[in-house]
Amino acid sequence: MKERVLTGDRATGKLHLGHYVGSLQNRVHLQEKYETFVLLADVQALTTHFEKPDLIREHLREIALDYLSVGIHPDRSTIFVQSMIPEIAELTILFSMFVTVNALRHNPTVKSESKNAGLDEMYYGFLGYPVSQAADIAFCKATIVPVGDDQLPHLELARKIVRRFNELYEPVLVEPKPLIGDMPRLVGTDGNAKMSKSLGNAIALDSSTEEIANKIKRATTDPARVHKNDPGHPDICPIYAYHRAFRPDESPEIREGCEKGTMGCSACKARITSALEQLIEPMRERRSYYAARPKAVDDILMAGTQRARGVAQETMKEVREAMSLNYFD
Amino acid sequence: MKERVLTGDRATGKLHLGHYVGSLQNRVHLQEKYETFVLLADVQALTTHFEKPDLIREHLREIALDYLSVGIHPDRSTIFVQSMIPEIAELTILFSMFVTVNALRHNPTVKSESKNAGLDEMYYGFLGYPVSQAADIAFCKATIVPVGDDQLPHLELARKIVRRFNELYEPVLVEPKPLIGDMPRLVGTDGNAKMSKSLGNAIALDSSTEEIANKIKRATTDPARVHKNDPGHPDICPIYAYHRAFRPDESPEIREGCEKGTMGCSACKARITSALEQLIEPMRERRSYYAARPKAVDDILMAGTQRARGVAQETMKEVREAMSLNYFD
Repeated sequence: MKERVLTGDRATGKLHLGHYVGSLQNRVHLQEKYETFVLLADVQALTTHFEKPDLIREHLREIALDYLSVGIHPDRSTIFVQSMIPEIAELTILFSMFVTVNALRHNPTVKSESKNAGLDEMYYGFLGYPVSQAADIAFCKATIVPVGDDQLPHLELARKIVRRFNELYEPVLVEPKPLIGDMPRLVGTDGNAKMSKSLGNAIALDSSTEEIANKIKRATTDPARVHKNDPGHPDICPIYAYHRAFRPDESPEIREGCEKGTMGCSACKARITSALEQLIEPMRERRSYYAARPKAVDDILMAGTQRARGVAQETMKEVREAMSLNYFD
Repeated sequence: MKERVLTGDRATGKLHLGHYVGSLQNRVHLQEKYETFVLLADVQALTTHFEKPDLIREHLREIALDYLSVGIHPDRSTIFVQSMIPEIAELTILFSMFVTVNALRHNPTVKSESKNAGLDEMYYGFLGYPVSQAADIAFCKATIVPVGDDQLPHLELARKIVRRFNELYEPVLVEPKPLIGDMPRLVGTDGNAKMSKSLGNAIALDSSTEEIANKIKRATTDPARVHKNDPGHPDICPIYAYHRAFRPDESPEIREGCEKGTMGCSACKARITSALEQLIEPMRERRSYYAARPKAVDDILMAGTQRARGVAQETMKEVREAMSLNYFD
């Protein structure tokens, strides 16, 4: 059986270089090797954004443009919209019958949230989003799910849910394997461990040449380097982190120049600015192509959703059979 | 706008005289006056019976026969299968975004269950079944929901959920009104306040003449009446309760005969046995007609489900529009 990858993003904001390094880049490779399903998770976005569905709608299209711009290709990847696959909702409901509240509370995201607000004040849908994630994975029988370390407990629960289903009924669902990324999280331009749009320290995937230059110009560097020739500490400098992430071959040279004080911050920044421009320039080009053709993007999402729906219907047929819910077959 | 009734039963066991008095009889009247939707709640049955879906399958067909046998008529009532309406699952998921765990814990059924097992050990789906009930009501825009007193808090939550949805998005859903039955709960043949199959004190709707006679013969009466002419206490006697439920016109005469000791228990039992036989005999007849025609029953359920599905699709279209989830319209 061919491996199938499931991956995707919550539709809560457009993507940036942190996402590119953490997952998008990898997906572009994965789609060459595996059948790849890419989920636009609008229902999951509702768990935190139910008061602003208009924003989800906007983000959904922005993320679709992000995908297309980085080279996720509709011929190789099935990009689809979660809320348009009713079978995911059906599977979520069926799974919820045999998952205890306790198992959900142990999910780290739910745990930290319930520490803040208390379990009682938590929304029922938010408490259950790991169940919904299990349904996202199970409906398409994904065998591989790329995850960061922080997502591993979610995947473990999804695996448990699939195993439990297969034990209770018939073994029709597939237990997914995690594919753990080897890239560390990309630091923000302010040196914060996490690049995040809401922290204002992110470089967007549709940045203009000028925006890239400005972001890098204003980025934090080693505060010990007052003069150009002061020796620096690359390991605390976000610019060096970007060299490592985007120009790994050159990074030993950069490290040496910094530590010896032979390369100043301006020169170092100029090099990464030019590297990022080289990375982002073709993304901008693909993006503007698709942004000018909203109908083509809709067609891509509709075709992907239709394809995913077909897979979902097949799976639900098997699930109904396994559970004896196929009353009239 | 025409009133629409939603009613139904969990598919966890065939129905008996307690159900007849408490709801089925009423439905036969309601269907003459209102558009009536009757839900075979197999998904809700899974909240407690997920390990035995085969049983749910059996019960579903038995209950369908119960419905047809008491005179719920497929031309007047839309009898449909819950698990075959994916829109109910979708609505449940959407509602779950804005219902807190706290609101669910206040549901009396959930409350008493969580007292026994603790909230943590409760299944996530069980905790959320009031949300699922709200979706059952909302998808078909029911305006009237017949309920017993014990079901009133569930309906109140459903009303709140509908109001919240309408406030958050657009007022496309309809707030249902409760129709509170005036019949008290039917006592069991052993005098237990509740007639229930699992207590062995129920009279099934498909009882044979002999079974009715035996059940009544063995039924508890006032233990103070040792001799035929001892004065009795009809208010503690299940047989008197049955007279009141099934032969209300004659019940003053029965009360008098019992209290004065002029009518013995045997004579009193003989009268209710004959009354029940008269009630159940046509049910048996209709039941055996349909039991011999399983294909016809399937057709009724499929047609009802298809009709309910059409209504559900209309509602979900409006819901998606209201929530801006209609991306490609």
